[in-house]
Amino acid sequence: MSPEERRQLDRMFSPRGLALFGGISTPVSFGQLILLSQIRYGFRGRLYPISSKGGEIAGLKIYRSLREVEGPVDLAAISVPARAVPQVLGQCLDVGVAGAQIHSSGFAETGKEGADLESEIREIAARGIRVLGPNCFGIHSPRGGITFLPGFDFSKEPGPVAMISQSGGVATDLGHEAPALGLGLSKVVSFGNGCDLEARSLLEYLAGDTETRYIAAYMEGVRDGRRFLETLRGVTREKPVVIWKGGLSPLGARAALSHTGSMGGEARVWNGALAQAGAVTVQGLDEMLDTLASLNYLKNPGPRLALLGGGGAIGVFVSDMAHRRGLQIPSFSSETQNRLKNYFSTPGNSMANPLDTGSPALPADTIGALAREILTREPVDVLIIVVLVRTIEKELPAFYTMNGMEPPSAGSYLKELLEPLTKLKKETGREIAMVFENRAHLPEEVDVERISREMQQQYQHSGIPVYPSAERALRGISGAVAAMRSMER
Amino acid sequence: MSPEERRQLDRMFSPRGLALFGGISTPVSFGQLILLSQIRYGFRGRLYPISSKGGEIAGLKIYRSLREVEGPVDLAAISVPARAVPQVLGQCLDVGVAGAQIHSSGFAETGKEGADLESEIREIAARGIRVLGPNCFGIHSPRGGITFLPGFDFSKEPGPVAMISQSGGVATDLGHEAPALGLGLSKVVSFGNGCDLEARSLLEYLAGDTETRYIAAYMEGVRDGRRFLETLRGVTREKPVVIWKGGLSPLGARAALSHTGSMGGEARVWNGALAQAGAVTVQGLDEMLDTLASLNYLKNPGPRLALLGGGGAIGVFVSDMAHRRGLQIPSFSSETQNRLKNYFSTPGNSMANPLDTGSPALPADTIGALAREILTREPVDVLIIVVLVRTIEKELPAFYTMNGMEPPSAGSYLKELLEPLTKLKKETGREIAMVFENRAHLPEEVDVERISREMQQQYQHSGIPVYPSAERALRGISGAVAAMRSMER
Repeated sequence: MSPEERRQLDRMFSPRGLALFGGISTPVSFGQLILLSQIRYGFRGRLYPISSKGGEIAGLKIYRSLREVEGPVDLAAISVPARAVPQVLGQCLDVGVAGAQIHSSGFAETGKEGADLESEIREIAARGIRVLGPNCFGIHSPRGGITFLPGFDFSKEPGPVAMISQSGGVATDLGHEAPALGLGLSKVVSFGNGCDLEARSLLEYLAGDTETRYIAAYMEGVRDGRRFLETLRGVTREKPVVIWKGGLSPLGARAALSHTGSMGGEARVWNGALAQAGAVTVQGLDEMLDTLASLNYLKNPGPRLALLGGGGAIGVFVSDMAHRRGLQIPSFSSETQNRLKNYFSTPGNSMANPLDTGSPALPADTIGALAREILTREPVDVLIIVVLVRTIEKELPAFYTMNGMEPPSAGSYLKELLEPLTKLKKETGREIAMVFENRAHLPEEVDVERISREMQQQYQHSGIPVYPSAERALRGISGAVAAMRSMER
Repeated sequence: MSPEERRQLDRMFSPRGLALFGGISTPVSFGQLILLSQIRYGFRGRLYPISSKGGEIAGLKIYRSLREVEGPVDLAAISVPARAVPQVLGQCLDVGVAGAQIHSSGFAETGKEGADLESEIREIAARGIRVLGPNCFGIHSPRGGITFLPGFDFSKEPGPVAMISQSGGVATDLGHEAPALGLGLSKVVSFGNGCDLEARSLLEYLAGDTETRYIAAYMEGVRDGRRFLETLRGVTREKPVVIWKGGLSPLGARAALSHTGSMGGEARVWNGALAQAGAVTVQGLDEMLDTLASLNYLKNPGPRLALLGGGGAIGVFVSDMAHRRGLQIPSFSSETQNRLKNYFSTPGNSMANPLDTGSPALPADTIGALAREILTREPVDVLIIVVLVRTIEKELPAFYTMNGMEPPSAGSYLKELLEPLTKLKKETGREIAMVFENRAHLPEEVDVERISREMQQQYQHSGIPVYPSAERALRGISGAVAAMRSMER
């Protein structure tokens, strides 16, 4: 990437002026909504809605043409009908706009005629303006104060996670899910058909972006596979890259073609090549989120896991899955097992790892003590603690009350548990991860979900990731382990 | 299974009298809690807590011995220490109790000594009393009014789904999740180490149980694999059997051994053999639930899917996954595509299948009309409609309000949509399934979850299943399709 190109992209991600073309005066049109989204998100640069009709919108002057605009324009958002795009893009090039995001659809994804129109755009881009799209949502950049049409309620807090995505929907889902996981976003780019800027160039840009520590990518097609993999191989030595490659089946490839005009490819070939180049490959957004959260919270992830919690089948299930994902659940030494036994009065609990606590809610200080025994004695990289939130909140109180005892509550239980775990994490430098299992999905049980979410925020704030199931914990941790291995090559 | 054995099991599942041994006077002991659970769940037979100390508990007389009991005892719940179990079980046999569930642990799962004790129990059972366990939760039977220790808040409404499980945790999770999916349970059995009654005999019993239409099984080991598969082969011709086999990896097998003293086995061998015998194999409880819900609601499941919703990447992702699961997403005819186009004003929406609606919330009547075009013109078995609940509830109102328009709400939108869909389902005899996507996981967004859950109940009530993601919908539907194919052999 040339320094000039990088400067152009820098300008696009933090535009001093944003010009908007198309649908400005049409209620609930894409063009109007994307303007309203910037206002609502709190864009601090200048907004220049442009329409030959002139007038006003949302208290802003509507300019009749780009030439009327006084200040510098670094980014243009174009939502005019496909046929009119080349002409508008040409105007932007003429006045020195750094880049444009073309939201309009009706290009390569629709067939031959659209593909020709897309070629026209590519030719204009080659003359000196960077293009995102067509058929995309464009840029979300908290630091630049700009966002997608459906991004007005994304977090304004920047963070270490960047994403490039050929799908606006996937990028939007990330924007909505990230805050609950405590993941700040640096730059999210929906690049649709990718006629100019695409996976390779955006990856290269983000590799050099100091704000970005982890890169996620959703791709449907790659223009020059060999070159992309070459770039990727370099980037993964510096930053973890988590890739979800869609369209890797005959059916998916057909869908990709009509979505972003992309050629999918063969699953085995692609996933192999991506992994070879040091990327972590995932299937679907949830797996991507699990991996990003694991990378973000587990500074020293490793394959040796210990598990602590109730329910032996969780042990079996988790063990089966750990094996499939190349993780280990090493048996504790007999000395450790003997020490652990002291905390239990009944037989039948497996002390070997997973440590089956039997009871769904051992007192918080017992859990803390067991965690300490494990992390100080055993060569374990990550200790996973499974908490049955529903059981604590909904079932134990009934039993306690029947016995005239003070009932526990999941919120106070989890709060009490957080302290010894935070301390232990700090002292040992080992990683702790939580699983909050919430088997309560009736409308009237939604309070369990609320408690679980509130406590998840507190744990994450203390650097401890929280997953909704052991399955997702293992999925995420195995991704983080793979990413770390890539960087150590 | 002999008629005598079947009668014994009938008595166990609907006991006139239930005797309880062990921990009766010890607060928060297993023995006491299981007694309290029966009271709370509303057992309508006679409860006989038994302890040599005598006295009273929860208003019930404590009997000093089983011989003091007046009425018939059909089931015994035994939680005494492992060593004392044979003697108690012998007493039960002597007075003609039909069966016992042995909750105590400390048997084969702990090593040689425990295994010997377990052999002793098996010998007593052979003399004429049926045994569940040891190391199990025993029976949950809404019609019989008995439940697990943690089952006191399970639904009291019986239904078509039975489960046999070597894990009490897995069986309990099913009990908690089933109501939200509108799945009634007939009989759930946690049989732990399975020293007498085990997977094969319980399967045979449920095959002949008129109340049970679908059978789920979580197994860690099988005593006589060949015989089990033979029985299974027969049962799957009559009723769908969904099996999750745990312990199918070296790590999982080790965990299974210390959980229920079971030998796991080889993944490829087992999953192949189970499928060959007509079972639907799943990995984990969520996949099991998806499959059971699909079986319960989709009376005519089939592999040809149509998809309708916003977000093109969902199309690509779902298409990739459909391919992996042997499902089809056949392209619509060009005539149908042309008709569908009339409902859209902008290009770029794929009409081919998946039908990408572009907008996250087309008016409910438009969705209804599109669904009608598809189901009346195309050879489709199941139409899946993806609704972005968070988007409708949280984002659209902002845009509508900015434009001075009446904002929608997810609840009223989904309510409005239910009517045309129910009608269409009835008229065409085709299946409709919903995906409620809720990408809102912050504590303050829990209202979206509540709305989604409430509407899920209403849709299920109208015979339309609701899944939390397209991934889970496809997973469940492919399981239901496989089960139906087995029955058509």
